[in-house]
Amino acid sequence: MSTDRLSVTLAALADPTRRAILAQLRQGEASVTELAQPFEMSLPAISKHLKVLERAGLIERSREAQWRPCQIKAEPLKEVADWLEQYRQFWEESFDRLDDYLQQLQAEENQQDTEN
Amino acid sequence: MSTDRLSVTLAALADPTRRAILAQLRQGEASVTELAQPFEMSLPAISKHLKVLERAGLIERSREAQWRPCQIKAEPLKEVADWLEQYRQFWEESFDRLDDYLQQLQAEENQQDTEN
Repeated sequence: MSTDRLSVTLAALADPTRRAILAQLRQGEASVTELAQPFEMSLPAISKHLKVLERAGLIERSREAQWRPCQIKAEPLKEVADWLEQYRQFWEESFDRLDDYLQQLQAEENQQDTEN
Repeated sequence: MSTDRLSVTLAALADPTRRAILAQLRQGEASVTELAQPFEMSLPAISKHLKVLERAGLIERSREAQWRPCQIKAEPLKEVADWLEQYRQFWEESFDRLDDYLQQLQAEENQQDTEN
């Protein structure tokens, strides 16, 4: 198993339940019980997911309040976004190609309309 | 193991060797032998990584040429970038807070300089 930080972040995000937990935390901090509510999962199962997110630095649990609310820590997400940025040209190029193709189809269709 | 597409993509990216393979492919298409060169890994080990990338739709292997070159397919990366976009406000906010803090420190320092 890889232990470099980006790999740990990506592995933590590679699970729909953990991404759903982060999505819930976009609304603000929440307790473990609140986070568990939308899932048909036991509290220990949710706690395990929270530990993975916490280890990846994606959430932080307050040590102050007794209910220890969780909140998002976005820095690892920024690192993923920065890493992805190097590949932006590749998806932009493929959308440009699709766009060219659609414009070509449109032009051919207009040409046909004129001929008929 | 999760089988939703975003989870498959993120799991494929959660490995430094697979990210290094993608980085190599940013320079253009390459054969398996060429991709294996920078790594102290057997061809079967590299092939296994390539299969994970291929299954995630992150690379495509040509069926035409006999050496079956690999190339990047960027669409799954765009999906990750789109998913991350929802969290941008969180990292921008935390950098704004850091910026405010640094400006405050600077202001205090200037104040001290004036007083001395």
